[in-house]
This record gives sequence, C-alpha cells and structure tokens, in this order.
Amino acid sequence: MIIVMKAGAPQTQAATIIEELKAKGLQPVPLFGVERTVIAVIGEERDINVGHLEALPGVEKVMRVVQPFKLVSIETKKEPTIINVNGVKIGSKQLAAIAGPCAVESEEQMEAVASSLSKMGVKILRAGAFKPRTGPYAFQGLKEEGLDILRSVADRHHMAVVTEIVDVRDLDAICKKADMIQIGARNMQNFELLKEVGATQKPVLLKRGLSATIEEFLLAAEYILSNGNPNVILCERGIRTFEKETRNTLALATVPLVKEMSHLPIIVDPSHATGKKSLIEPMTKAAIACGADGFIIEVHPNPSEAKSDASQQLTPSEFETLMKNIQPIVDAVGRHF
Amino acid sequence: MIIVMKAGAPQTQAATIIEELKAKGLQPVPLFGVERTVIAVIGEERDINVGHLEALPGVEKVMRVVQPFKLVSIETKKEPTIINVNGVKIGSKQLAAIAGPCAVESEEQMEAVASSLSKMGVKILRAGAFKPRTGPYAFQGLKEEGLDILRSVADRHHMAVVTEIVDVRDLDAICKKADMIQIGARNMQNFELLKEVGATQKPVLLKRGLSATIEEFLLAAEYILSNGNPNVILCERGIRTFEKETRNTLALATVPLVKEMSHLPIIVDPSHATGKKSLIEPMTKAAIACGADGFIIEVHPNPSEAKSDASQQLTPSEFETLMKNIQPIVDAVGRHF
Amino acid sequence: MIIVMKAGAPQTQAATIIEELKAKGLQPVPLFGVERTVIAVIGEERDINVGHLEALPGVEKVMRVVQPFKLVSIETKKEPTIINVNGVKIGSKQLAAIAGPCAVESEEQMEAVASSLSKMGVKILRAGAFKPRTGPYAFQGLKEEGLDILRSVADRHHMAVVTEIVDVRDLDAICKKADMIQIGARNMQNFELLKEVGATQKPVLLKRGLSATIEEFLLAAEYILSNGNPNVILCERGIRTFEKETRNTLALATVPLVKEMSHLPIIVDPSHATGKKSLIEPMTKAAIACGADGFIIEVHPNPSEAKSDASQQLTPSEFETLMKNIQPIVDAVGRHF
Amino acid sequence: MIIVMKAGAPQTQAATIIEELKAKGLQPVPLFGVERTVIAVIGEERDINVGHLEALPGVEKVMRVVQPFKLVSIETKKEPTIINVNGVKIGSKQLAAIAGPCAVESEEQMEAVASSLSKMGVKILRAGAFKPRTGPYAFQGLKEEGLDILRSVADRHHMAVVTEIVDVRDLDAICKKADMIQIGARNMQNFELLKEVGATQKPVLLKRGLSATIEEFLLAAEYILSNGNPNVILCERGIRTFEKETRNTLALATVPLVKEMSHLPIIVDPSHATGKKSLIEPMTKAAIACGADGFIIEVHPNPSEAKSDASQQLTPSEFETLMKNIQPIVDAVGRHF
Repeated sequence: MIIVMKAGAPQTQAATIIEELKAKGLQPVPLFGVERTVIAVIGEERDINVGHLEALPGVEKVMRVVQPFKLVSIETKKEPTIINVNGVKIGSKQLAAIAGPCAVESEEQMEAVASSLSKMGVKILRAGAFKPRTGPYAFQGLKEEGLDILRSVADRHHMAVVTEIVDVRDLDAICKKADMIQIGARNMQNFELLKEVGATQKPVLLKRGLSATIEEFLLAAEYILSNGNPNVILCERGIRTFEKETRNTLALATVPLVKEMSHLPIIVDPSHATGKKSLIEPMTKAAIACGADGFIIEVHPNPSEAKSDASQQLTPSEFETLMKNIQPIVDAVGRHF
Repeated sequence: MIIVMKAGAPQTQAATIIEELKAKGLQPVPLFGVERTVIAVIGEERDINVGHLEALPGVEKVMRVVQPFKLVSIETKKEPTIINVNGVKIGSKQLAAIAGPCAVESEEQMEAVASSLSKMGVKILRAGAFKPRTGPYAFQGLKEEGLDILRSVADRHHMAVVTEIVDVRDLDAICKKADMIQIGARNMQNFELLKEVGATQKPVLLKRGLSATIEEFLLAAEYILSNGNPNVILCERGIRTFEKETRNTLALATVPLVKEMSHLPIIVDPSHATGKKSLIEPMTKAAIACGADGFIIEVHPNPSEAKSDASQQLTPSEFETLMKNIQPIVDAVGRHF
Repeated sequence: MIIVMKAGAPQTQAATIIEELKAKGLQPVPLFGVERTVIAVIGEERDINVGHLEALPGVEKVMRVVQPFKLVSIETKKEPTIINVNGVKIGSKQLAAIAGPCAVESEEQMEAVASSLSKMGVKILRAGAFKPRTGPYAFQGLKEEGLDILRSVADRHHMAVVTEIVDVRDLDAICKKADMIQIGARNMQNFELLKEVGATQKPVLLKRGLSATIEEFLLAAEYILSNGNPNVILCERGIRTFEKETRNTLALATVPLVKEMSHLPIIVDPSHATGKKSLIEPMTKAAIACGADGFIIEVHPNPSEAKSDASQQLTPSEFETLMKNIQPIVDAVGRHF
Repeated sequence: MIIVMKAGAPQTQAATIIEELKAKGLQPVPLFGVERTVIAVIGEERDINVGHLEALPGVEKVMRVVQPFKLVSIETKKEPTIINVNGVKIGSKQLAAIAGPCAVESEEQMEAVASSLSKMGVKILRAGAFKPRTGPYAFQGLKEEGLDILRSVADRHHMAVVTEIVDVRDLDAICKKADMIQIGARNMQNFELLKEVGATQKPVLLKRGLSATIEEFLLAAEYILSNGNPNVILCERGIRTFEKETRNTLALATVPLVKEMSHLPIIVDPSHATGKKSLIEPMTKAAIACGADGFIIEVHPNPSEAKSDASQQLTPSEFETLMKNIQPIVDAVGRHF
C-alpha cells in the first residue's frame, strides 16, 4: 500500500498516519520526495480499509500494490482448475461446447434442439427457464415447468444442463434439475446470489457484467470461492461500450489476461457478445485461437420463432457448420472436444 | 416499427413478411426505395417481437418508432408524480434532502448523525443495513440489527428512513422498518427484486445502474409500476466511463431529459457520482440548478472511521455548510426544503 | 514513482534496477513486503521513462505519484489565470457568454445573428469558417471567405471572434481575423496544431476530446503553455459514452475538478454536449452553478436552415430567453456578465 | 429516411414537411399510426440534411435507413480490394506482417531490427519519425533525419516502409521516403490530413480512432477514397473503454463486421490494443482466426531502452517465436505470408 500525501501537507499529518499504522501492526516507511511525502506500508494490504486512509487529513490518494482477490489468484494456486461437467473437463485441453436455445419454450422445441446437438457430440445443454428481460412485457420464461422440460430432455439425450438463476429463492429447485448454474451478466454483482451459489458445490458459470472490470469479475468469483465452492467457470460475454453496431464489445484479451491472473477456466459467449448470427463463427474461432476453454452458443430449432434473442440464435444446421468450420482452429491450438 | 430489407433482397421475402404482419392484425406498408425496400408497420409496436422480425430472411434491421415503456411515460400521464415521504412531497417544488451514513455501524454513530441532521431540518435518513460490497472481505452490514437501530434512531428524531434492499428475502423485514426502499445501482436490473418491490406500496428509490441507458433505467421503473406500485423516485448516481479521476461520471443531463420522458421524480446522488468530498457541493448545486427534485448525500459523524465509503462521506458540520451554500441556488430555481 | 516487482521476482532483478536508478541520480528505496518487493523512487518523476522501467525483467507495474503536467498545474501557479477577450475577463467573476452559429454561411446570416447577440450584451461571437465534418459529403465551411465575413460583421458590432482551426496551414489567416482560436474536440490531440498555437499569443479555446481523460486534456493544454502561450481557456463539451439519448455525456464534475488541479479557466459547451435544444438551458444553469467560467452556445437566425448542427442551434429569441432564465443562477453564485 | 413526428403534433406540421420534401424531388409517404405520424421518405438519403429535418416543428426524430458512406461500401464494390505493398498483396490470402519499432531512434537500432526482421521474411518495416505523444516532454521523434534512416535501412534489406504522418506539411517528405502512410488513431478525424493523403496514390494505413464508431471509421476512409485514393488499409487497434487492465480494448468483432460492410482490407495492431507483451501473441492468433488481413507489431532490438512504448515492444527473438507459434493458425485459415 502506498499513501501519497498532498503537496505541502504538514509533516505532522504524515506522522499521525504513521503512528496509527504502527499501532495496527503494519510497517509504514515514510519517503520524503521533492514534491510530496509518500508512505509505503508493508503488511497484509487486503486487511487495510483504503477508504479510511483516503479520508485522513493530508492524504491525496492511496494506491494498492496487490490485487484485492486471493482465492481465485494464480499466486494462490498455480495449476489450472479443471471442472468436470458430464465428462467434459473444463479447463483442460478438452474444449467445452455448450449450446442450446436462449429460453426453454416447449418440450418439442427442447427435444428438437437436444436431439440435434447430442448427435453432434455436444454434452452440455443450455436454456433459460427463468429469464431476466429488460422490459416487464417480454417473455419471462416457463420457470419450474421449464426446468422440468430441460431436465427430462437432457436426460433422454445424456446431456448435462446449465441454466440461469435470477432469484435466490429458486436455488433449490435449480440445484435439483441443473448440473451447472449460470449467473448472468446482470447478476454478476448480486452478491447474495453469489454467496448462496458459493454455499453449494455445483459448478457455476459466472458471466462478466456488462460494465464490470476484470478485477470486479474476479472479485465476484472470489465471493463464490470464499463461500466454499471452488467450481467456477468464468465467461467473457462482451462489455458495454459506445459502439452500437454489435450488441456488446467482445473483449477477447480478457481470456489470456485472466489466465495470467487466475487459475479458473474461462469460456466465451459469442452470441451475446455480438448479437449477430454472422459474427458468431469468426468470434468463436478467435476465442479458441487465443486460449478460451470453450464457448456457449445459442441454438434454436427455429430462431425466427424464438421468444427472445431471435436474431442471434443459430439453427442446429448452422451450428453444425460452425462446428465443422472451427475444427481446423481447434486442431491448430492442440485442443479437442 | 420500420423494417429495413437488405439491399437486393428478393421481393418475395418482403411479401412473406407483409403477409405475416397482416395475419397478426397489423398494417404493413411497403415502400420501394432506390436502394432498399422498407416496410413501415402501423399498430401497437410494444406487442411485436422485434427479434423475430430481425431473424426473418432478407431483413437487415428493425427500427422502433416509440419508446418501449408505457406506464412511466409522460405520454401516459402528463402531470408530475409527487410522492409524500414524511411530509416531504418529492416531485413538487419542495426539494428532498436525504442524508446519512453509507452504512449503519452502531447505535452511537446513527444517533450522532441523526440528531445533527434532524436539527438541520433533514427529514429523511439514509443508511445501509445490508451492504453490497465489491469484495467478499469487506464489511457487509449489520443486517437486521442495523434495521432496528435505524428505525429506533429515526423515530427518536421524527425522521423517515430509506435503506437498501439486496435480497428479496429481506423484503418483509425492510418493509416493516423502512419508509422508502432503495434499489441500488447493481440491482437496477435485478428484475425479481423489482417485481417484489412493485408488489408493495412503499416508495422506491431506484438508482440508475452503472451502465444502464436511460431507456433501461425507465424500463426498470416500468417493472415496478407494472407490478402495481406507482411510487418510484429515480436517482441519477453517475455512470461508468473511461474517466477515472472521479468514481463515476455524473450525467446530469439525465435530469431534464427524464423530465421530458417521464412523470416520475428524479433526484441526484453526488456522493457516489463523484467519490470525492470536494466535488459534492458543486455537483449538488448543479443538480438543483438543472431541475433535480432533491439529493441523497452521505454524512457520517466521523468519516475517516467509516467502514465503507470513508473518502466520500461528509461530516455533519460539512453537510451543514453545504446546506447553507446551496441555499442561493435553491432560491434561484424557486424551490424550498 | 513506485515500482512493484512481480511476486517471486529474484532479488537480483530489484538490485539491478536499483543500481540503474542510482546511476541516473535518483534515490531508490527498496521495500521488502510480504508478497512483493516494491521500490519507491525519490526524484523528478516527470523525467523518468516509465515504459523503460515497466519493460525491465521482474517488474509488474510502475505507479506514478505526481501528475505528469507542470505548467498548467495549480501547484505551479496558485492564482487563477484570467484572460481578457474584448473586455471579458475570462476566469474572473465575470462570466463569458460566447454565442453564434455553428458555421458561417453568409454575410446575411452572420449579420442577423451578430446584431441580435450584441444587443443582448454578448461580446464574443463564435462561428466556424473551416468545419471538421464526420463525412466528406457534408458542408465543409466557407473557409477564407467565411473568416472575412466573420471579421467584418464582428467589427460592425464591436464583438470579438472565436473560430476553429483545423489545419496548421490556416494559422496565419485565422490569427489575422480572429481574437481567439478554437481547437475542436477532434483536434485536442493534434499535437502539431497545439505546438503552433502555442507559438502565438492568441487566446486558445481548447475543447476536451471525445474520449480524452482529464489528464490528457490538461496535457494538451500543457503543450500550448510549454510552447510559450499561457492564454488557454479549457472547454468541457461532453464525452463519448454508451448513452445515446444525448449526443455526448456532459461530465460537469470536470469543472470543479479542473479548478482543483489547474489555474486555467474552464467553460462549458452545452450545445455539443447534449445535441438537444431543450437541454441547453438546464445544462447552462448547472454549469454556472458548479463554477464554470462561462459557456459557448450555438445560435442561428434560422436553425432549421442551418447547414450543420441544425437540431441543436437556438434562435436569437430562444437564446434571449435562456439569458433571462439563467440570470437568477448567475446572481446566486455571485457572478455577472 | 424515416421522420417520426411527436405524439400529438398537428397534421399541419407533417403537411408542411411533406410539401417541402416533394419540392426537393423526394417522395414522402405519410403513415398515420396509433401514437404517432411517421413520414417515410423515398429518395437519395445521403443528400438530405438530417439536422434540418430534426429541427423542423413537430419532428421527434429522424432515422436513417442506409449507411452514410458509399465508396467504401461493399454495396458499391463487391470484390475485396487488394493493395500491393512490396509484393505483399494486402487483402488477399496473403497475410501482411508489418513489424518494427515504435520510433526510429538511430541508424544502429533500425539496422538491428530490419536485418532481423527481413531474415524472418517480414517485407514491411514500421517505425515512426514523427511521434504524436500525449505530453510535450516526451520524445517527439527524429523527424526528417528519422525518415532518411528508415529509408536507407529499408532499402538495404529490400523492405517497404510504413510511417506515420502527423502534420500535413510533412506529406511531401513522407511520400518521398515511405511506401505506405500511416494515419494514427488520434488523427483518424483530422479531416484535412485525410483529404491530403486522399490526393496521393500512396497506400494509407488508417487506424481506428480511440472512440470512433465503425461508421465514423468507414467515413474517415470515405474521405480518402472520395479524394481519389482507393488504397486504404484499415487497422483495428483497440478502443477506449472503462477497462484499464489493458491499454485499450481490442474489439476484434470489427474485423468480420467491416468485411460485411466494406471491400477494404483490415489488419490488427495487437501491440497498441493491449499494451502488454504477453497478450500480443494470443491476440495476433485471434485476429488471424477471425479473418484479419494481417497485423502490425512493435519490435525493438532492446525494448527496455526504447524511447517510447517500451513495455509493449517485442525483441526480434520474441517476434520470431510469435511468428512460429501463429503458423498453425495461419495454416488453419488457409492463408500464408
């Protein structure tokens, strides 16, 4: 921790701070520079209330030296975390291909998509039963009925299920039916939800918030790990920027950057990141090329009839083409499904 | 609704869309332009699934003509909504001054701040009992104990209480103790929470999400109104941008813009918007000057000892100075406390 | 300057850096923390090549302690800079009201607007002769002819002229005709232009770039001052964000923040910041309330016929109403025109 | 073009607009909807002054149907543009590998880097002689002397030269020495510069502005084409967002999106996009995987001694490793150097 005093702050202000830090068992080292006094503090930075220091008289700013997360950090655990979901070892050389419609709409719809996908070797089925929608008049999901459909269809095709939770009160119901719980972008900082899924052992697919920094993204994962659940898969799904030609801006550098900072696996969602069918394949290729551990793509038997996200869902046949077209890249990076 | 066909899309594609729209009781008007065919659609736009249309063959894009919200719209209700909280008529000429610490920390702390504030005429006390914190190791609030302290201290000083809800399961407890429920920025799109507070009649202080557009902000309010609760007070609290000198970027044009679009009152939070003590007073003045219906400011008896947001909380005495210094602006706009 | 070494970096790497810094006459102080070694460096930080240090083996990051600008800093010059333009002392208690059309379109248009504005007491006339337009097919300005019109009309009404420069080769022509040179948002980091206007003594109205940080904004001003011209007036004109309801996002906290960091005057451009006529008056009030030294507003005798920015220009009569309506705020902050 | 009238606007306002449009030879079609009147306009949209229409009484907003650019559009020219620079056919199956230091610092430095790069098969050498720097105290380049060094070193190794222009007055000097002219991100909307390079026939490497939309990016290219120079190579180099872990946010979806919208080639700059050595290789792989026509990477014989961008420049040996490691991706997409 580095405390920068204001230009011209009287030495007594620095002295008071130094005394206080010493009293807390920390080791403050004052440095008298040309323009400012700086106090370097040796000790466990994460235990220090930065705001308190910033509020003290004479302090201009306080700068952290270390990242504020611990359990998710690669400094805490060097080897990558591998999470097994239905035989897919996410975080290993095996890539996770997760696919399915935006929302569960009917037994027929799910059966159509699951039978197609399972034949292509997809082992994890996605679909929302509880839907977070921007406006109250949009389709909000089939809820418990959707969970039942999802489970029975997935069982029939030996697939695992990942589905989104939007309310802590649904946790038990979802845990019973799903193999992996998705925390959506809008809930990445729903801390009560993070704590609750942290209290289970279910794999959690944690999507990056629309405007979350990478630090906040990893701190959200830290909430889950610190509550006891080590099974977190991160998901980069695009951030909000000034650019409106795409639904979001897919920040792919997040993939290698997170791999430098954390041991957790990270996959990419090119459907939500772009919002455009034609961009899904090139962005999937790019994601795999730069080291993503997999992808989650929206596939619907009849996209134009979908009750949500119609314009970004692929047909099973389009998805099959994508799987074929990305194979050379998968081979090039020495990975497999 | 305007449907723009791709350049060179065969006329049969437009014809198919036109048939479908007619079958749904809408009135499509095809326009054959130089470069593209455009289909203008007359009818209730909010009932149309835009994604569905965008996903049809030959469609380049679909453009909305009207705003997607209805109940919050000024077109639905011309006269401003006024919400009475402890005698403060929010949305009228009377300005709402809401103040108090970031978090309830103890009976003593709350007593100190409430007794000071009530003497200055502040009628609404803010303080968090349940705290949404970026990292899991930060102070998470006193929870139910905090609510009790907040209530008893407020009662003693004849103040109303506004406090944040972060978990739907706390709704009953909060409704019992609070006069106004705050939905924080990170929960602006926690739709289950919006529905639940929408099912009460408590005034709701709805803060704008960090990266929410004004349309999304108003749609979040629409969730509350459409569930039966008309008592929503909007709060602009800064958005996330590339600029890091301030904690957020206070987008003050939101105030007059929302007043053009909606009948709901809107206040400003200069504490979170700036994150810097010295900027709170000038931004409060600016907010009042451009038509805000009030403000919410963090005040702590001893900011440097605060367990959260230490660097942006004012002392009661600093807040008293602020109240004095903003008075000429309050007078200039013809308002009062 | 603080150099943070990577966790586990061998001590020899820190030792090498320390030797190098000493050889350069700096005073490095190594601090051996729990997780990392940190080297605090005492000496003139602005002379150190940060990139060089960041590139050395074992270095995780380098953190600056002081701001990289000097001449524009309030630490260099405590008293505010006041710049006299046609009797308007910009930066003093006297507010600068700058108005006029987006572009010079004809003698008649300029005469109409100047005669109206001068009667209202406006002493500085704005209008572009050289127009930076997003697309090549838009009106690019009357160029030299526009300058001549601008000058003769302004002289007739005893007004000063501010006009934009978009090409270094026009500097002489503009210096001959204008009293203040505007550097537009798109040229804020056109460093050659900054150096050239820095070599004159003309007052420079420097607009903030669309995505410039406040630090970059002040560094752009530092270019002008360091080339010998102390007469810089800053202008906050909105930044680019995800929000599209307004043309830009007016970041008004820039005003008091810049006043804490710099001695230069700062005005606000509510026309470009909002792009909407109805928001200009409230944002002008807000700007004055939070301490702006003036404003620049687009006024056109017949806005709907304007060749550029038609939708955000006020008529002279609308501007007159604005001037009347803002007067109570002007009085409230103890300023005058 | 679609004109949306305000709710409740009197029919006479629409009638006036319709008359005006007809008088201009356009074909307005009024549509009387439930909530609003909409006027669809058939005719050449690019010739209409949108601002004028927006400023007319009763108009709520005006929506464009077609893109505002023409010459760069794929609708104007279906086949991809291929630009030959020193035998590298940019835009074809052949990938452009452009490398070299941030700045020309000396004959020795350039000789070292060029001899290494040419041996690896790199045919286009980059280096800046005129440097746009954020602050005035940073190294500003060797200018004409730098150009001479660049040319003579490149000639010795049979390489082409790309170098940045920052001032129109340097155009002749640069045209004499360089084979391709770079317009940097900060000058993407320096329209006078665009016009001048548009008047030459030199290939232009046009970098996307920090906060330029894709539409603005293509309009900048349109400036060059409309002035007569068809040889434009676009370069995605990252945009400015709230995320600060990387220098910029590399928006890779720009690559396939631009290929849908334009016939111009597009390459990627992973050095500036990330600002971190370790991210350059993964982002180069991702760029090639999603269809980029090449890349431009900073390589310096001794990065830590570089006078600018030290932390993001690779050594020749690191670059050699990158070239080897990306080869499987290059093969996978069926391209070659």
